[in-house]
Amino acid sequence: MLDCIIVGSGVAGISAALTLKANGKNFLLIGTPTVSEKVEKAELICNYPGLSAVTGKDFSAALKAQLADAEIQVKNEKVAGVYALKDKFSVLTQENNAYESRTVILACGVETVRSIRGEEEFLGRGVSYCATCDGFLYKGKKIAVLCTSKRMEHEVEYLADIAERVYLIPIYKGVEISRPNVEIIQKMPVAIEGGKRVERLVFAKPVTENGEKELVIDGIFMLKDSLSPSVLVGGLETQDGHVVIGRDTSTNLKGLFASGDCTGRPYQYAKAAGEGNVAAHAVTAYLK
Amino acid sequence: MLDCIIVGSGVAGISAALTLKANGKNFLLIGTPTVSEKVEKAELICNYPGLSAVTGKDFSAALKAQLADAEIQVKNEKVAGVYALKDKFSVLTQENNAYESRTVILACGVETVRSIRGEEEFLGRGVSYCATCDGFLYKGKKIAVLCTSKRMEHEVEYLADIAERVYLIPIYKGVEISRPNVEIIQKMPVAIEGGKRVERLVFAKPVTENGEKELVIDGIFMLKDSLSPSVLVGGLETQDGHVVIGRDTSTNLKGLFASGDCTGRPYQYAKAAGEGNVAAHAVTAYLK
Repeated sequence: MLDCIIVGSGVAGISAALTLKANGKNFLLIGTPTVSEKVEKAELICNYPGLSAVTGKDFSAALKAQLADAEIQVKNEKVAGVYALKDKFSVLTQENNAYESRTVILACGVETVRSIRGEEEFLGRGVSYCATCDGFLYKGKKIAVLCTSKRMEHEVEYLADIAERVYLIPIYKGVEISRPNVEIIQKMPVAIEGGKRVERLVFAKPVTENGEKELVIDGIFMLKDSLSPSVLVGGLETQDGHVVIGRDTSTNLKGLFASGDCTGRPYQYAKAAGEGNVAAHAVTAYLK
Repeated sequence: MLDCIIVGSGVAGISAALTLKANGKNFLLIGTPTVSEKVEKAELICNYPGLSAVTGKDFSAALKAQLADAEIQVKNEKVAGVYALKDKFSVLTQENNAYESRTVILACGVETVRSIRGEEEFLGRGVSYCATCDGFLYKGKKIAVLCTSKRMEHEVEYLADIAERVYLIPIYKGVEISRPNVEIIQKMPVAIEGGKRVERLVFAKPVTENGEKELVIDGIFMLKDSLSPSVLVGGLETQDGHVVIGRDTSTNLKGLFASGDCTGRPYQYAKAAGEGNVAAHAVTAYLK
């Protein structure tokens, strides 16, 4: 069994990984090969000690090189859920793999998209965060797909292969999907409504040709770069969407630590690097 | 009046300074021109995100260059005390300057030398941390001087000019002081004893030619690279020698924040950088 699974390969996750490696721990770093899209897109970072006026691209390249130097691989999967079992954790990915570890460091960043009213209420009853997990449920049905990154367009296409009709709401520019059963909606919905299950997606302004302010759907997929920590980990204490941690980055779940943007402001690289480091030391102490 | 005074120019202090500068604050960074001796002496740092296997010398040079780029000067003085007044702070230095600010970020590192029994008890009654402040009290008297760095030898010489006899206990190699009234003692004392004032310095093993285990003294100067936070700031809540802080680096004293090694383990650069950043954001929020 692994000593630790780090969820997220941003600055916090990388910092934790470097220190766990130095401490000789056996761990998995789950994230994206781009390391962090947020870092990659940063224009210029001026207040990160040691790197004077560095571009996001250069910072990202430095981090990737450092991971390579330390012989740390990033497992390119998307975490679907973290489950606290007795004395260990099971981390399930959207790629349908399950990994077990004694500890977890949550470094999943912050949601860049605000939650929609009804999203939490209908989770598991028409709201899903995982195309490959739940897509099969919507064969021949009508679904909406809110997608935050071009990187996830293949998941939209996966869903378009299954569903009869897809309303795609892209939160990014340069959509490249062109399918007869995919309709692109350039408006943000304000609410998910229904009865026992999701029935419709509500907008502030007319969204159909007939001037209606809602779309009739059987389900909605929220394909986000980062999930909210409380969705990712059942029973995790959060406040205003941020994980509540102590000074050693420990959460209310024994063996689960959190660091970086998911623990709250300031959303800064130095703060993320610091918390990732502290989390790795806390994990090392916990494993004793 | 200044917005903030940062006490200490290690990684935490520099991180705070870079962010305060970015936030347009008017502050003073008090420290040493070498920036941080601890950084300077680090052999190889492998777990600082963004800098792959960097030597302490290179890291230190990068920090200095970054300060220069940001047009931040390090005020080369030694802080003797931080005093919380009504709605502001007064920071006194051993150079006999007083600076006022609305907030303070304590980033003074950790004491590298353990306290000696009696040190706190006799503070102000024969124990002093400041040669230039209290030296004149010992004209024609016998004193001990514990000195942790060659950098402070000029303070020892200052004291040797005043006192009749100086027992110098150097905690470093390559002592360069050679004066008829300075006797070098290569042993660590275990206790400071006396009545109303300091009377003798006690050792575990014989220290005089006659085989006695104590030196008769009128006072002792502890010239340390870093003072303990509780000595530096009266009324500051500490635990095991570390400043007690909240997640926003706030202390029990309103407007006083702390970051880096002085707030506790892990003594790591990434943690120091993170806390310095958080402290600067907390100060910025506090000033609103």
